Amino acid sequence: MIGGGGNAMIGPIHLRAALMENDIELVCGCFSRNYQTSLETGQKWHLPQERIYHDYREMMEREAQLPVGERMDFVAVVTPNKVHYEQAALALDMGFDVVLDKPMTFSLEEALKLEEKVRQTGRTLALTHTYSGYPAVKEMKTRIAEGQLGRLRLVYVEYTQGWLSERIELLGGNNAGWRTDPSQTGKGGCVGDIGTHAWHLSEYITGEQVVELCAELSTFVEGRPVDDNAAAFLHFTGGLRGVLHATQVAAGEENRLAIRVYGEKGGFEWHQMEPNTLTIRWADRPAEIVRTGNGYMSPLAKWNTRTPGGHPEGYIEAFANIYRNFVHTVRAKAAGETPRPEYLDFPDVHDGVRGLQFIETMVASGYGEEPKWVKWVEK
Amino acid sequence: MIGGGGNAMIGPIHLRAALMENDIELVCGCFSRNYQTSLETGQKWHLPQERIYHDYREMMEREAQLPVGERMDFVAVVTPNKVHYEQAALALDMGFDVVLDKPMTFSLEEALKLEEKVRQTGRTLALTHTYSGYPAVKEMKTRIAEGQLGRLRLVYVEYTQGWLSERIELLGGNNAGWRTDPSQTGKGGCVGDIGTHAWHLSEYITGEQVVELCAELSTFVEGRPVDDNAAAFLHFTGGLRGVLHATQVAAGEENRLAIRVYGEKGGFEWHQMEPNTLTIRWADRPAEIVRTGNGYMSPLAKWNTRTPGGHPEGYIEAFANIYRNFVHTVRAKAAGETPRPEYLDFPDVHDGVRGLQFIETMVASGYGEEPKWVKWVEK
Amino acid sequence: MIGGGGNAMIGPIHLRAALMENDIELVCGCFSRNYQTSLETGQKWHLPQERIYHDYREMMEREAQLPVGERMDFVAVVTPNKVHYEQAALALDMGFDVVLDKPMTFSLEEALKLEEKVRQTGRTLALTHTYSGYPAVKEMKTRIAEGQLGRLRLVYVEYTQGWLSERIELLGGNNAGWRTDPSQTGKGGCVGDIGTHAWHLSEYITGEQVVELCAELSTFVEGRPVDDNAAAFLHFTGGLRGVLHATQVAAGEENRLAIRVYGEKGGFEWHQMEPNTLTIRWADRPAEIVRTGNGYMSPLAKWNTRTPGGHPEGYIEAFANIYRNFVHTVRAKAAGETPRPEYLDFPDVHDGVRGLQFIETMVASGYGEEPKWVKWVEK
Amino acid sequence: MIGGGGNAMIGPIHLRAALMENDIELVCGCFSRNYQTSLETGQKWHLPQERIYHDYREMMEREAQLPVGERMDFVAVVTPNKVHYEQAALALDMGFDVVLDKPMTFSLEEALKLEEKVRQTGRTLALTHTYSGYPAVKEMKTRIAEGQLGRLRLVYVEYTQGWLSERIELLGGNNAGWRTDPSQTGKGGCVGDIGTHAWHLSEYITGEQVVELCAELSTFVEGRPVDDNAAAFLHFTGGLRGVLHATQVAAGEENRLAIRVYGEKGGFEWHQMEPNTLTIRWADRPAEIVRTGNGYMSPLAKWNTRTPGGHPEGYIEAFANIYRNFVHTVRAKAAGETPRPEYLDFPDVHDGVRGLQFIETMVASGYGEEPKWVKWVEK
Repeated sequence: MIGGGGNAMIGPIHLRAALMENDIELVCGCFSRNYQTSLETGQKWHLPQERIYHDYREMMEREAQLPVGERMDFVAVVTPNKVHYEQAALALDMGFDVVLDKPMTFSLEEALKLEEKVRQTGRTLALTHTYSGYPAVKEMKTRIAEGQLGRLRLVYVEYTQGWLSERIELLGGNNAGWRTDPSQTGKGGCVGDIGTHAWHLSEYITGEQVVELCAELSTFVEGRPVDDNAAAFLHFTGGLRGVLHATQVAAGEENRLAIRVYGEKGGFEWHQMEPNTLTIRWADRPAEIVRTGNGYMSPLAKWNTRTPGGHPEGYIEAFANIYRNFVHTVRAKAAGETPRPEYLDFPDVHDGVRGLQFIETMVASGYGEEPKWVKWVEK
Repeated sequence: MIGGGGNAMIGPIHLRAALMENDIELVCGCFSRNYQTSLETGQKWHLPQERIYHDYREMMEREAQLPVGERMDFVAVVTPNKVHYEQAALALDMGFDVVLDKPMTFSLEEALKLEEKVRQTGRTLALTHTYSGYPAVKEMKTRIAEGQLGRLRLVYVEYTQGWLSERIELLGGNNAGWRTDPSQTGKGGCVGDIGTHAWHLSEYITGEQVVELCAELSTFVEGRPVDDNAAAFLHFTGGLRGVLHATQVAAGEENRLAIRVYGEKGGFEWHQMEPNTLTIRWADRPAEIVRTGNGYMSPLAKWNTRTPGGHPEGYIEAFANIYRNFVHTVRAKAAGETPRPEYLDFPDVHDGVRGLQFIETMVASGYGEEPKWVKWVEK
Repeated sequence: MIGGGGNAMIGPIHLRAALMENDIELVCGCFSRNYQTSLETGQKWHLPQERIYHDYREMMEREAQLPVGERMDFVAVVTPNKVHYEQAALALDMGFDVVLDKPMTFSLEEALKLEEKVRQTGRTLALTHTYSGYPAVKEMKTRIAEGQLGRLRLVYVEYTQGWLSERIELLGGNNAGWRTDPSQTGKGGCVGDIGTHAWHLSEYITGEQVVELCAELSTFVEGRPVDDNAAAFLHFTGGLRGVLHATQVAAGEENRLAIRVYGEKGGFEWHQMEPNTLTIRWADRPAEIVRTGNGYMSPLAKWNTRTPGGHPEGYIEAFANIYRNFVHTVRAKAAGETPRPEYLDFPDVHDGVRGLQFIETMVASGYGEEPKWVKWVEK
Repeated sequence: MIGGGGNAMIGPIHLRAALMENDIELVCGCFSRNYQTSLETGQKWHLPQERIYHDYREMMEREAQLPVGERMDFVAVVTPNKVHYEQAALALDMGFDVVLDKPMTFSLEEALKLEEKVRQTGRTLALTHTYSGYPAVKEMKTRIAEGQLGRLRLVYVEYTQGWLSERIELLGGNNAGWRTDPSQTGKGGCVGDIGTHAWHLSEYITGEQVVELCAELSTFVEGRPVDDNAAAFLHFTGGLRGVLHATQVAAGEENRLAIRVYGEKGGFEWHQMEPNTLTIRWADRPAEIVRTGNGYMSPLAKWNTRTPGGHPEGYIEAFANIYRNFVHTVRAKAAGETPRPEYLDFPDVHDGVRGLQFIETMVASGYGEEPKWVKWVEK
C-alpha cells in the first residue's frame, strides 16, 4: 500500500476491504512520506520493519526482487490525486497490478497515458468507485439491462455533503487539505471528489453514457480556490436525460449519495446511507421494496452479497467487492483464463479516463457568464 | 363555485376545504358548461335548483341582486386556466372576492391585468398554491425568517409525478385533457401545472426571490404539444442558488413534491407525501424530527394546525388553511379592520403574477439549441 | 352536538368530519354544562342563539318539536364516558340517531342496555373508532378477507403515547382530567382510552375475535388512580395469537398506533402516523408499498378515499368516513332501503359492547399476584 | 476455528469479522466433521493442509505442541449448541482463549460448568451476541447509564423473522436442521436462537436485569418439535417493565430485531436492519436522529466505529467489534495489564450463563394451561 498512514480515512478502509475474503494479505507498505508515520502505521498492522519502506520507488524495487509468492502481488494507491499517475505507472511498469483511488489521476492527460500503460502492460487496474460495489446498485444495473424499466427517460443523481461547510482545510489535521488545494487535487474540487462518484453511478447503473452536459460550478465558502458545489443537466446516449447535483457545503448532511432512474414502466430509487434497500416503483402496481440478501435477487447482486437478508452490509463490504472482483480477475489472468463476467465487474482504467473527462467537461461548461452545452471532452 | 362538476378532481377538494371550519357554506354554483352536469353536481351538494346556474355570468348577475347575507360572498374558480381571467375579473368587478386555482391566468398579460383589477377594486383574491398551506411549510418559513439556518445557500426543490407517462389525454374522461392542450393551459405544460407549485414553495419558504434561471424544458411523450418535463438552475436574491426539477413522466411516482433548503448552519427537508414531519439537520449536532401538532411549534404553524401531534393532517387541511385565512382576511376588511399577519398568510394576486412570470421565464430559457440565463421576466 | 365546547379537542374534529361531504350541517348544540361556554362555542360556529341549549334534555325536547327538515336528524355525543349512556339512550328514545365517542359507555352493563335500546328503537348508532376509518385499514381488512395472507398467525398491535408521562391531570385545563378519573372514565384508564382502539383495530382488520387474554395493567405515574400502561397476550378465534401493548407514559411518543398482521404467506404493517402507506411483506417475493388513492386499491378502500395518490389524507378524513357511512346508512333506512354493505362499514353498538367487554376482560386479567387467562367477559 | 465449513452461514462471517483489523489471522481449523468438507473449506481459505484437522481434539493437541507465535492463540467455536461445551471446555483446559457462538451451551448446567472453567483457567471467553456490537447500541447504553432518560419505565424488544414459516428443516441443506432439533439445540427453539439476542440487548442497553417473567411459547408450524414463537412480559430490576416477542414464522420478515426503551424524559428506538440510525424522542422537544460516525457520539460508540458519518457499517462490523475487543482484552491480559473498560465491553461467560437462564425461565413459564410469573431461574 502507498499512503494510508497516520489519520488518513481511506487507507484503513482499503485494508479492511482487502482482507475480507482472506484472499489478500498486507505484506508491505510505504504509508507516508514521513517515515516515522509510515513505520508506526506498518507496525500497527504487524508488518516486519524491513517491509515498511521510506519511499514507494524503493518499495517497488525491493519487492520486485523478492521471490514470487513472497513479494507483493499488487499495490493499492491511496494517496492524493497529484501523485496517482507516477505511482500507478511505475507499478504497472514493474509488473504489479494496481488498485487506485479515484479520481484516477490529476489530469485527463495523465489518465490517457495510464490507460495506454495498462494496454501496453496488460496488467489489471481497479479504481475504487466504491459505490458501484453495493449489491443493490448491481441489482439496478441488472434489471435495467434486462429492460424492466422499458426505455429510460430520467436519472436524478445527487451527492450531498456538509463537511466542507466551513473552511476547515485551514485548520489542518483533516482530510480537507489536499482535496481543496488545486495543486494536489486537480481542476475539480467537489466535482472531482464526489461529483465523479455520482456521475459514475449514473453510467454504471443505466448502461448509458453522458454525451453532453450543461453545468454550473460554484464556491460558497469564501477563499476556497476550488468549487464546493456543482449542478448539471446531463444528456446521455439513448435519449436519457439527467440532473446531477453535488455539494460539500450543505450543512448537516453526511454522505448523501442517492440516485433515481425512471423509464417508461417505472423507476428505481436508492440511497447510499441505507444501502440494502432498493425501491422500485411501477406505473401500474404497488411499489416494491427489494432488499439485498434475499433469494429473489439477481445472480450479480448475490455474488456481491455476504449476509442473508436483514443482516445489513455497508460501505466496507461494497469496497471489498471491488477488491474481490479485482483479485479474481488477476488470478484468472495469471492462470491464463478468461475472467468470468462477474469478476470483471469493477471500475477500471476506462472508468478512470471517463472520470477525468467528466471533470474536464464539467469545468469547461460550469464557469463563465453564459451557460453552455459542452460535448463530452475526449482529450 | 365555477367549475368542479362531473368527475373533476379539484372541485370537491375546494368544497371540503371551504367547509372545514363551518365558516363557509356553498350557496350557489355553475359547475359545468353542461347544465345537466351542473345540475346533478349542485343537487348532490343539496343546492336548491334556482341557485344552480347555466352560466357564470348569469350566476354573478343573479347573485348580486340577492340581499346581503343571502347572496354569495365570494366565488371559487376551479376551471381550466384559459377562462380564469374573465371569470375572476367579472367577479371582482361585481363586488365578489375570489378564490382561484393556479396558475392564476392563461397568460402573464392577463395576470397583470388581474393584479390591476384587484388593486382597483380593493377586493381579496386567494390563489390555491395549496402546498404552502401545510403547517410544516410554515414552520420552515418561520425558522428561516428567524435566521436559524444562517445565510442561505442552496435550495433543491422537485415535483415528480408519473401520471402522464403515457398519452392518457387522448383517452378522454380524465383531467389530463386540458392540462396538455396549449389552447387551454397556456405556454407551460408540466412547468405550469406543477412546476409553479415547486417554484412557489421555494420562494415562500426562503423569503428570497428568483432573479434569473437557466432551464431545460422537454417532452418525453411523443406527440404531446406541451412540455412534460423541466429542470432549472435558479439564482435567488441573497446569493441563494437552487436546482428545480419537475416532471409528469416519472412512471410510478404519485405526487412527490419535496424541498430542501440549506444554510450555513443546517438544512431543512420536507416531503409533501408525509407532510407532518420536518427534518432539520444541523452542522454540529443531531438532526431533529419536528412534527406538527406539538407544543414546540411556532405560532404560525400552530395557527394552521387542527389536530394534536400524531393525528395526521393532509392535503385537504392544507387547502382549508388557505380558505380559512382568506375568510378571516375578507371578514376583517369587511369590518374595516386591518387583517392580522397570520390572516394575510395566503397566496394572493402577486403570487399569481409571479407564477405566470415563472412560466414565461422558464419558457424563455428552456427551449433552443443553447442554454441561457434569463432574467426574471417582468412583463 | 352534546359536548365539544371550550378547549375540547375532539368536538371540533367531529364537526369538521361531519361537514366534509356537505351532507351534514350543524343545526343546534349543547356544547358544555356551562351555558356561557356553550353559547360562545355555538356562536363561533354560527348557530342562532335559540338553538344553543342549556341542557341536552332541553335540546332533545325542543328539537323534537321542530318540523322535520328543520329539526336535527341525529346527535353527536362527545362528552366524557360517564354520561354517554343517558345521553345516547334519551336520543334514541326520542327518535334521533346517534354518533358516539368511544368507549361507548361507562360500564358494560350500560353498554348492554344501549345495545338493547338500539335493537328496540331500530335506530342507528355509530361509534367513533376513528382508526378503522382509514382507507389503508380497509385495504388490510379486504385483503385478509380474500385470503391473501393465508391462515392468520400473529397480530402485533400497539398504541403508544407519552402525553400522560407526568401527572398533568392535576394542572387542569387539559383533556387529562376526566380520562384519569375513574368516576368519569370507568374501570379502564389507558386500557379504555386507547387500548380499546388497538383492540378494535385488531378485530376489524383480521375478522377474528378475541376469545381469551392474559393481561398486565400497571400505573407508572404515582398517585394516578387508573392504569396508564397495559400489555396483553391475545388468543383469537381461528388460532390467531396476538400481543397488544398500550401506554400513555412513553415519554416522547405522540400517537403511535400501529398494527402488524402475519399469516402463512406474508404480513401487513400499518402506522397510523403515516396512514396512507401500507407495507405488505411476502414470504417469497419483495415487499410491496401499497398507497391509498391508487387505481390498484380495493373498492372498499376507494370508497373511503377522497384524493388521488400522493395527496395525503389524515385523521379528519378517517373520521369523516365514519360520518359519511353513518349518514348513508341512516338515509337508506329512512328511505326504506337496505343500506349497501359499504355504508354499514362503521363501528356500531355491537363494537361498543365488545369494547366494554374488552375493558372488563383486561381488568379481570390484568391485576393481582398471578397472571391469568381470562375468557372474554360476556356480561 | 471449529465448524463453519460447507454452506454454513455464520462461519465465514466470523472469519471476516476476525480479519477486519489485520490483528487476527486464520492459522488452522477443523471446519466440519466431514474431513473432505473441512479440507475444501480450509483450502479455500489458503490454509496449509497440515493445519486442516480431522477433529477438534486433534487440532487442539497438535496446535498446543507448536511454538508460541506459530500456534493458534484462540479458537472460534461456530458449531451447533450441542457440542459447544465440550469444545470450549477443552480449549480452555488446553490454554486457548475462546470465541463462542450463542447460546453458549446446550443446557444451563453446562453453562454453569463453563463459567466455573473460565474462572479456574483465567482465560477469556467471548460470546457473539453480535447485536450488542453495534455502535448505536453502545450509544444507547452510554446515554442511559448517564441518566439521559431519567428513571426507566418500559422496554419493548422484538426479534421477528419469517424464514421458518414453513417446515424447511425437512428439506435439508439449510441452517434450519439443527436449530429445530431439540437434541442439537436444547430446550429452546426460537427462544434460544433469537429470543436470547432480544433479551440480551434489553439488559445490555438498560443496565437492568430481568428478575421475573411471564411467557407464552408456541409452535405454529405443525410437527416442529420446538417453539417457533414466543412472547413475554418482563420485570426488570429498577421497576423497569418490558414486553418481548420473538418469532420465526412471521412470513415475509427478514431479521427484524428492534428495541425501544422509554424513561421519564424520553425514549430510544433502534432497528437492527438500519443500524446506523438511533431515534431519540424527548418529552419536551423534537426527536433527534443520532447517527453513527458523527462527532457528537459518545467515546464508547466511537471506539466501535470505523467509518465517518454516512458511510454505513453493518453486521460484519458489529461482529468485528466483538473480536476486536476480545483481542485487546486477551493481549492486555497476556501483557499482565488490566484491560481498559472499552476492551472488556463484549459479551462473556456471564452473559452466556444468563442466556441459558433466560431460556430456562422462558420454558418454565411459557408452557401449560395457566400463565405464570417465574422468577429468574438461577440453576
